[in-house]
Amino acid sequence: MTFPATIAWAPDRRVRVLDQTLLPAEERYLDLASGDDVAEAIRTLRVRGAPLIGIAAAMGMALEAAKAGAGETPDGLARARAAGRVLGATRPTAVNLQWAISRMLARAESAAAAGESVADALRAESETIAAEDRAMCERIGRLGAALLPDDATVCTICNAGALATGGMGTALAPVYVAHAAGRRPRVIVPETRPLLQGSRLTAWELGRAGVPCTIIADGMIASRLRRGDVSCVIVGADRIAANGDVANKIGTYGLALAARAHGVPFYVAAPTSTVDPATPDGSRIPIEERAADEILAWGGRRTGPAGAAVWNPAFDVTPAGLITAIITDRGVHPPAAVTAAAQPLGAGA
Amino acid sequence: MTFPATIAWAPDRRVRVLDQTLLPAEERYLDLASGDDVAEAIRTLRVRGAPLIGIAAAMGMALEAAKAGAGETPDGLARARAAGRVLGATRPTAVNLQWAISRMLARAESAAAAGESVADALRAESETIAAEDRAMCERIGRLGAALLPDDATVCTICNAGALATGGMGTALAPVYVAHAAGRRPRVIVPETRPLLQGSRLTAWELGRAGVPCTIIADGMIASRLRRGDVSCVIVGADRIAANGDVANKIGTYGLALAARAHGVPFYVAAPTSTVDPATPDGSRIPIEERAADEILAWGGRRTGPAGAAVWNPAFDVTPAGLITAIITDRGVHPPAAVTAAAQPLGAGA
Repeated sequence: MTFPATIAWAPDRRVRVLDQTLLPAEERYLDLASGDDVAEAIRTLRVRGAPLIGIAAAMGMALEAAKAGAGETPDGLARARAAGRVLGATRPTAVNLQWAISRMLARAESAAAAGESVADALRAESETIAAEDRAMCERIGRLGAALLPDDATVCTICNAGALATGGMGTALAPVYVAHAAGRRPRVIVPETRPLLQGSRLTAWELGRAGVPCTIIADGMIASRLRRGDVSCVIVGADRIAANGDVANKIGTYGLALAARAHGVPFYVAAPTSTVDPATPDGSRIPIEERAADEILAWGGRRTGPAGAAVWNPAFDVTPAGLITAIITDRGVHPPAAVTAAAQPLGAGA
Repeated sequence: MTFPATIAWAPDRRVRVLDQTLLPAEERYLDLASGDDVAEAIRTLRVRGAPLIGIAAAMGMALEAAKAGAGETPDGLARARAAGRVLGATRPTAVNLQWAISRMLARAESAAAAGESVADALRAESETIAAEDRAMCERIGRLGAALLPDDATVCTICNAGALATGGMGTALAPVYVAHAAGRRPRVIVPETRPLLQGSRLTAWELGRAGVPCTIIADGMIASRLRRGDVSCVIVGADRIAANGDVANKIGTYGLALAARAHGVPFYVAAPTSTVDPATPDGSRIPIEERAADEILAWGGRRTGPAGAAVWNPAFDVTPAGLITAIITDRGVHPPAAVTAAAQPLGAGA
């Protein structure tokens, strides 16, 4: 299977990204030339998905470091740090963003200390992060596919597929692995208001891959689960707290309540970079609130009265108690055990 | 307080309706001249809301009967029957539609049997139905307002307000009564995809009445209830089965699950014409499925891939066990007691 090229290095020191705000009507790629360009693309959700914005931020820092004069190591380090500050302020909830920036800064510092080219080191590190993400997606896919029966009907939310990562996705990876093995999975896709990442993105990439799917409005989730034929729910994650509480796209918590009410297993799939041991529980995860017009208008047409009061959190928190298991690249974990499992390899738990 | 004139007799034997598909951008009234015009307005949701479509069907039958020649009683009866068949086939779930049509047919038959003008009798009966609906809304409002604390925060879904009735609404009537008494209620309004009756209609009529409200996407309901400051949920109903199960706008069932998870009282408000003793439980309520493009496009712009598979039920069923009480014009009832309470006055239970 081939997946959309969400992000890649392009000629002339540019980062080529698929503009996800235009899908499914148009598949257009943008070449970004600076850290500010990358920050704008993340802020406006042209590039979105917790793993993917981590990769994008890494590439944005490498882009900036490359603007330093030849041999100017201190300048490269300073540029990488400045870009990291701008990129780190774009979105508060997904911890993968901070994780990637911290990793890139550490690499920049070690390169500078060793007198190496910061630009070369960061370009290589960004490629390593992207390659690791691809590999993590594949491991999540294999581990998750083992949890699916043949002819599985999987319900997800938002987009935690190839478009959210540098690989085959997180929540959708088990579906793709099962599909490639001829095990005929199908997917229920809640449209995921306000920005419709389900109907615009997930349905688009599943259709492209030949996986059958059915789009529903978010308010139909509980009725759909009640029918009794949904094998499991698999969602992505923007941050997993130390106790196993999970921040993900708004609507996930209601989906988890409906899954519990109907005895449907509820899985979270995410790379270990999504686990944040520094956040003790979900109440401490910062939740981004976005602009009212995401809810009050669509395609230039009013969907609510101009000036109406709106509450528009982009994420919610699903308590660990509603989660059957968390699928990471390291294994299938009870929620409370995910932090220990996500420790750096070789570190004590 | 004055409410929007959702439906009224206009000069020259026409029925004037507010075209609800154009709100909130435009407040435009249409004059309907035939039963077919009324049927089209119901089918396309220009006129919607269980109580209101009952009134509209009654007026549509009166419109047709008035086309009979002077003194031509059999013709008036035949025309009323034909219109009733067309109007009864427009939407399957709301029982108020069948209730109003049956009532109008009975009146047409009694008029014909007595040699009276069927046209005059049906015009008068349609006015009686509309007046009764106004009165029922007011009684629901007074009974429901007594359940609200001062400074209540009420969560609803879809639109069961003035726009859904010939009066001050059903679910919103308690809010309006409390507001008029200076008790400062506020309303959480889920937008209610796919047709956005929450953000387009409920927020519009609450704003017009000066009641503060906050619009949320449907996926935000569970998170909003988790905050702990929602006094209660009040929703309308399209049909109440004999056992107290309630069909209402899709999304209501998920809202009820979230209310139960957070200990928030969940009320259904509806006139007794919504109770259907002939339907034993919710599994027997016919659920209308509507066109895929309600989900795949908005305002002419694609919201999902063309041709994608869609499941688009317009209603769901909330089991009686999740309902705290049903507020009708006759009282506040435990769900299992509503059928007895809704028996015709004077009839045995």
